[in-house]
Amino acid sequence: MSCGEFDIIARYFNRQRNVRRDVLQGIGDDCALMSVAEKQQLAVSCDTLVAGNHFLPDIAPADLGHKALAVNISDLAAMGADPAWVSLALTLPEIDEEWLAAFSDALFEQLDYYDMQLIGGDTTRGPLSMTLTVHGLVPAGRALLRSGARIGDWIYVTGTLGDSAAGLALLQDRLSVADKDQRDFLLRRHLRPQPRVLQGQALRDLASAAIDISDGLISDLGHILKASACGANLYLDDLPISAALQAACPREQVLQWGLSGGEDYELCFTVPELNRGALDVALGSLGVDFTCVGQITPATEGLQLWQGEQRLEPQWRGYDHFG
Amino acid sequence: MSCGEFDIIARYFNRQRNVRRDVLQGIGDDCALMSVAEKQQLAVSCDTLVAGNHFLPDIAPADLGHKALAVNISDLAAMGADPAWVSLALTLPEIDEEWLAAFSDALFEQLDYYDMQLIGGDTTRGPLSMTLTVHGLVPAGRALLRSGARIGDWIYVTGTLGDSAAGLALLQDRLSVADKDQRDFLLRRHLRPQPRVLQGQALRDLASAAIDISDGLISDLGHILKASACGANLYLDDLPISAALQAACPREQVLQWGLSGGEDYELCFTVPELNRGALDVALGSLGVDFTCVGQITPATEGLQLWQGEQRLEPQWRGYDHFG
Repeated sequence: MSCGEFDIIARYFNRQRNVRRDVLQGIGDDCALMSVAEKQQLAVSCDTLVAGNHFLPDIAPADLGHKALAVNISDLAAMGADPAWVSLALTLPEIDEEWLAAFSDALFEQLDYYDMQLIGGDTTRGPLSMTLTVHGLVPAGRALLRSGARIGDWIYVTGTLGDSAAGLALLQDRLSVADKDQRDFLLRRHLRPQPRVLQGQALRDLASAAIDISDGLISDLGHILKASACGANLYLDDLPISAALQAACPREQVLQWGLSGGEDYELCFTVPELNRGALDVALGSLGVDFTCVGQITPATEGLQLWQGEQRLEPQWRGYDHFG
Repeated sequence: MSCGEFDIIARYFNRQRNVRRDVLQGIGDDCALMSVAEKQQLAVSCDTLVAGNHFLPDIAPADLGHKALAVNISDLAAMGADPAWVSLALTLPEIDEEWLAAFSDALFEQLDYYDMQLIGGDTTRGPLSMTLTVHGLVPAGRALLRSGARIGDWIYVTGTLGDSAAGLALLQDRLSVADKDQRDFLLRRHLRPQPRVLQGQALRDLASAAIDISDGLISDLGHILKASACGANLYLDDLPISAALQAACPREQVLQWGLSGGEDYELCFTVPELNRGALDVALGSLGVDFTCVGQITPATEGLQLWQGEQRLEPQWRGYDHFG
């Protein structure tokens, strides 16, 4: 580590907020030291964000600070875990104090919101990128996996789909939206995703499988189907589309972004018929819509997309990991 | 994630070796899921390695695979923790199968050696770098911290110091060593550090403080002194120096590398007088030398370096984080 870097860590990242009782030793030793309560299991996920690949190089540091953590927390939400701790490895081309202040403020705002603690990290010099490792806790045996979907289960998603892709298109001047509120909504959906933590926790005893939608519904539902050895019917007329996206572009584009736009960070989950009533109660009070968009079928049927009675084969559905 | 990347992960990193019973869900879901045994605490450390900064750009992939994990395990060793799980976030400029095979083989060789499991990760495209997050387990309340050193405690180091800096100098043609065995020894000490895991565990009830030597003895002992609010006398005549390093360069250079060369990944620890006998027994059977190099003093005395009766003030001792 070069000189000065210890100072950065101390000034921007070693804040005394977010002190959790299960963190016995936070930043400042060779390792952080935590206790895990009895009957809890540990959920860990790790994601890298590279400038130009996962975010636009000119992204505002506050947006990046928010998003980097949000997309990682989204993985915890998809397991039904309660966010707890995070490590941040930050690679910076230079020390820009204004950038660091805005980035770390946004990061800590969200840490506070979720009662999470930054337990360590590393600051190095190089092209802008970061790796976050998030840790969550989940009651033993109750984590949501991808592998539990069964034939006949209903497929749901939270929120609306495709907004984030439209927001990115706005930033890249591939889309224009006259209405300021609608434009702001789409941008916000891209830059400030809200991980569905409460929904994930409420689904622990109700959903048979869950995943967060980071690569688009087709791709991520595909992971559930593969892990559960199932197929699915997806009803495109039922896709939850925001008024802003609806107004912004033609139906074909809406569908493409809704199905494979990526970065929505909503949850996709499957629910047995028996649990649908309980689901309505459990998720109904959480303030985010949830919509049934399809049903699990035998593996031999694959993933089929339906528009009314008509089966669709869009060109853009393909991902190499989803045959 | 771009196409093909799922394939890489599956082919090189999703191996079925190293299956630990406490890993309930490994690679392949939104999060990994682990159980932590009762009365154990979790130690977590996170380090980034960037090409050209932490390793030479032309390093052999097998050496990199070894070193990236070893330097992270070294942080666990410094806490007295038992290595358990690791996440790997790997950023690659291109997909080079030969490189990946050699890198991952070396990584898994060491995972096997320590009975560790790769629980997740991320592969992205960009300039070569990687972030590892290692997890270890330590009996509750028995972790080695930096903050426990007390006046009068003796300061020890494992192994020999300065070899790694000499190895780096060899690689950069800043040093030449005629004897092949000695050259190989120094290169190996730089490229294949051996984390002192057994020593760390044996020190749990004997050492008052510990740290691993990544930035050089002066710098890392400085962290103990700062965390423990102490000073120290360091006796340079007692520094453990390998025969290879001794033979390779003049005394002044030996001392500089031994005190601030960095990347030795030996342990520096403090032991109360009362525990010195038990220390000899506990560490004596582990096959790595350990040497008393100084003693803890009051904070007001700072860190003093002694050569015989003479106090030294080398130019190169300074690090900005150690006043």
